[in-house]
Amino acid sequence: MNVRALHTDRVVSRLTALRAAMSASGVEACVVTGADPHISEYVPERWQGRMWLSGFTGSAGTLVVTLEEAGLWTDSRYWEQGASELEGTGVQLMKIVGPSSIPPFVGWICERVTPGASVAVDGFSMSLGGMRALETGMQHAGLTLRTDIDLLDAVWTERPCAPSNSVYAHSAPYANRERSDKLSDLRTAMAEKGAQWHFISTLDDLGWLLNLRGSDVSYNPVFVSHALVGTDSVTLFIAEGKIPREIGEKLGQEGVRTAPYESAQSALSALPSNATLMIDPARVAYQFIRSVPGDVKVVECINPTTLFKAQKSRLDAEHIRATMEQDGAALAEVFAWLDKAAGVEEITELLVGEKLAAARADRPGFVSLSFGTIAGFNANGALPHYQASELSNSQVKGDGLLLIDSGGQYLGGTTDVTRVVPVGDITDEQRYDFTLVLKGMIALSRARFPRGTRSPMLDSIARAPLWAAGIDYGHGTGHGVGYFMNVHEGPQSISYRAAAEPWTAMDVRMVTSIEPGIYRHGKWGIRIENLVMTQPAAPSEFGDFLEFETLTLCPIDTRCIAIHMLSDDECSWIDAYHATVWERVSPHVQGQARAWLERSTRPLGR
Amino acid sequence: MNVRALHTDRVVSRLTALRAAMSASGVEACVVTGADPHISEYVPERWQGRMWLSGFTGSAGTLVVTLEEAGLWTDSRYWEQGASELEGTGVQLMKIVGPSSIPPFVGWICERVTPGASVAVDGFSMSLGGMRALETGMQHAGLTLRTDIDLLDAVWTERPCAPSNSVYAHSAPYANRERSDKLSDLRTAMAEKGAQWHFISTLDDLGWLLNLRGSDVSYNPVFVSHALVGTDSVTLFIAEGKIPREIGEKLGQEGVRTAPYESAQSALSALPSNATLMIDPARVAYQFIRSVPGDVKVVECINPTTLFKAQKSRLDAEHIRATMEQDGAALAEVFAWLDKAAGVEEITELLVGEKLAAARADRPGFVSLSFGTIAGFNANGALPHYQASELSNSQVKGDGLLLIDSGGQYLGGTTDVTRVVPVGDITDEQRYDFTLVLKGMIALSRARFPRGTRSPMLDSIARAPLWAAGIDYGHGTGHGVGYFMNVHEGPQSISYRAAAEPWTAMDVRMVTSIEPGIYRHGKWGIRIENLVMTQPAAPSEFGDFLEFETLTLCPIDTRCIAIHMLSDDECSWIDAYHATVWERVSPHVQGQARAWLERSTRPLGR
Repeated sequence: MNVRALHTDRVVSRLTALRAAMSASGVEACVVTGADPHISEYVPERWQGRMWLSGFTGSAGTLVVTLEEAGLWTDSRYWEQGASELEGTGVQLMKIVGPSSIPPFVGWICERVTPGASVAVDGFSMSLGGMRALETGMQHAGLTLRTDIDLLDAVWTERPCAPSNSVYAHSAPYANRERSDKLSDLRTAMAEKGAQWHFISTLDDLGWLLNLRGSDVSYNPVFVSHALVGTDSVTLFIAEGKIPREIGEKLGQEGVRTAPYESAQSALSALPSNATLMIDPARVAYQFIRSVPGDVKVVECINPTTLFKAQKSRLDAEHIRATMEQDGAALAEVFAWLDKAAGVEEITELLVGEKLAAARADRPGFVSLSFGTIAGFNANGALPHYQASELSNSQVKGDGLLLIDSGGQYLGGTTDVTRVVPVGDITDEQRYDFTLVLKGMIALSRARFPRGTRSPMLDSIARAPLWAAGIDYGHGTGHGVGYFMNVHEGPQSISYRAAAEPWTAMDVRMVTSIEPGIYRHGKWGIRIENLVMTQPAAPSEFGDFLEFETLTLCPIDTRCIAIHMLSDDECSWIDAYHATVWERVSPHVQGQARAWLERSTRPLGR
Repeated sequence: MNVRALHTDRVVSRLTALRAAMSASGVEACVVTGADPHISEYVPERWQGRMWLSGFTGSAGTLVVTLEEAGLWTDSRYWEQGASELEGTGVQLMKIVGPSSIPPFVGWICERVTPGASVAVDGFSMSLGGMRALETGMQHAGLTLRTDIDLLDAVWTERPCAPSNSVYAHSAPYANRERSDKLSDLRTAMAEKGAQWHFISTLDDLGWLLNLRGSDVSYNPVFVSHALVGTDSVTLFIAEGKIPREIGEKLGQEGVRTAPYESAQSALSALPSNATLMIDPARVAYQFIRSVPGDVKVVECINPTTLFKAQKSRLDAEHIRATMEQDGAALAEVFAWLDKAAGVEEITELLVGEKLAAARADRPGFVSLSFGTIAGFNANGALPHYQASELSNSQVKGDGLLLIDSGGQYLGGTTDVTRVVPVGDITDEQRYDFTLVLKGMIALSRARFPRGTRSPMLDSIARAPLWAAGIDYGHGTGHGVGYFMNVHEGPQSISYRAAAEPWTAMDVRMVTSIEPGIYRHGKWGIRIENLVMTQPAAPSEFGDFLEFETLTLCPIDTRCIAIHMLSDDECSWIDAYHATVWERVSPHVQGQARAWLERSTRPLGR
């Protein structure tokens, strides 16, 4: 039996076990979101039930299992991967093509179960907002929703425990605002909403608020906990033993007491009568809010900490700039090696990832990677969220494009950068695509816009050059990035498909990616990604404007550029960028890396 | 007593009368929206209570009157005008700077009335959606909302009646889809929502649906009515005598019966038990929905007719193109006159408007203007919605820029075009502004984008060149335009400040304006506006794309262009546009107009 058949077999037997548990509970359909009780983007293994059941390893999707059938709904990023991973398992790949107010699988369930049937979804695996939409859909379809059972528990016999890693302090000089000041800002925001209580489940918000970090989730320096913030108390719900004694004592002195992780729900159910509780309906699991007494008023808004965290301090910005120099130096070392080794040594996608990890690990302040390196050669690069594995690992040889998307967590900042390098000979079509992507990236990098512009509205500036050529890409152009924190954070989202809520507005010193791309199915993928920070532009009689400071310091491979497609302004932007990269990174590299950097940052020959 | 003092005096005495009526009804604040029971943009005089009370003539705003004070909330378009018109009346100008979920005047009222006070808003003067937001705000503020009284009625002794003009048919060949087919499409949309009934108050939707037109509202060829559409009946609520007998009989044969205008509310209150009623919460007045029995299920969505109406038919498009040629010919005649008369004859803003009206009236198919002509010289041009009056009418003489925004209603289409012409000598600063605006207009005119892109997302393509210079403008870049129908229609809105709802998506053959601008307070205003129609672009492996066909045929004054600021592509766009204008408009003009057109459409001297 080969690896593939083993995989398929395992999925089939797990689904069979789940169906038995469903029958035993009188449930005809089970929705497995794969979310954790913190509604995290990166989920500890304990809560990766969607993957465990279906074998689908994508980071977004919903698995729905009826007694006879199963489907996995996911967006375009994962269609290729999903089709491959689900093949033979009996789980159908279902494509989500756009936003809908009611989850797309509700109609599908409805056609497959008896009228009024019970549908189970673990109430800790879906946000309050998500569950509301599902409830509405279920009601319309005449289905009964059960949120109080987690059917996975019965069938997942070797289910991992919640992570128990230690918490540590994010200290000065990197952390440069006191916990007490952050709490004071938060309480001001609570008072503005008339709230005496605020429940936070969002792991990166908690880490930022408390100046603490952890290692419970791969790549994200967070720790699993919830917090209930009162007007003069904070209770941190966290597993015993995670907080070192010294930190625990310090927290205690500052009014932050700890309580068992499992007691969060009962603390909410014990809130005093007529209290007002503030929560973010998108970031708190439904089942928590079900526990809140009926006479507690619930005020809903985005977590103030999400907004605070997005705006880096001036000192944060200084550390980020220094971190970018080190990260750029590590990249220069690896790209220099790659340039020399291509066509000579045996190079695989996984090896590129290993080299990058090693080069970053040598740099001061390095803690971990900020996400699994994506190194995709040719057709593999066309999968926007491809991760090389032992199964897929391609040799980087012959002719083509190698897409490398990688990043690091450093005490002084989080990096995320994508570059595409030519291997052997590349074609005019590839240069055409590369140059269009570059034009999009330059257009947005150079843009100014009114302070307060909702971030989704900026997307078309980056896409216009690609759209003009009849090309689009299925992912967003930009996401927020944390400060030694998650590589994806809100509230900003430069995506024309995003909802453009008022709280997505751009403000000063927000760190965002700019990463347009072109993906030619089965051929090649191109993405160019820099991190940028909003800075005030010169004000005018028309109001306050923002512009982007480019943070990432890594040459853009000029061998892939069709120079005739660029305007003079675009060429000047590249030359100026490369001059900055040389100036700031060269002091941190020697030998072959320095020589490579010098070559790679020369002005465009026009 | 001068005109100004008379005006002020009148406002003061009307407000005094209103306050007496408020006291008599036990009301401490009164909200006057100035909306009609159809939630129209252009409002018949009967419902222009906001203007009658305050003297403010802007088309958007909310007047709030307490027993002691009064305020008028309006957006940036009307700040200058509002400040001038409200001066001395005791009504404070209150600036609305951005969207808010709760009306901005709620807090203001709250600070000025006794706790729990009654606040009156005529329930026919606000949409269901608007009233919900107001209700929420009032509840938070502990105020009591009264929607069942119209205090204006008591004090407005010479209040005009609802308009009683005759309805007429929009006939073939201009109307090229049968009423019965349109009704059939509508009923399909109703069935998709499970609705047996659909109530429509939106005047342009009704005119489109029934292939009828009227003249109840200045510039908009609509007639005042509501309709209740059932699965096999239509009741048109319209004042007696408005429908000519012949049309009435034809309607009757097709299952459309008429009923008194005032009986709409009672028809809604008589809907059968357990029926499902479909309404657009933004386009139906609150008081109507209050009349619906509690056991009728109300389904809310945008009026399907709004979406149908936006997508013109292929035959509509042919008529629109022919209409644009005639409109362009009329414009050429006036611009040729202006060119010759400037500096020679006495020219006023009002005279320019009269010339435009006369030239259009000579053209085949002309019915009326599509809005009041805006002709603003220098500082007057800086008021985006300026309308010259006997009071403000400026002489067009000396040096500067004359902004002219005008349009016509023709049986075969509706036009809306803005051009700026130089008078005497103009400055480099003016050319700089003009060229930036032009760059924005060209950028969006040439854009392609995925079919289904929500229209607000396109705005930054037009604004990017202005934003780069630290410049913005307070109005949207584009609005939908009807087919011999309102010059402003939905669902599209190319405005980065708009909500980007899914139903704002762009689809084929939608007519939209592109009209960026720069307004230098007290100096000059520049706006360049063309109408464009979405057309399918070449499809690609990345999906369906749309592009714009420019419909408007009128030269852009090249004397205002700083050519060095344009790229080759931009210059080519202008030359190609001017070649098209010459080719299509020249057959329709003679003499001086033809000579002017020839001069004005020559290629740019590069």
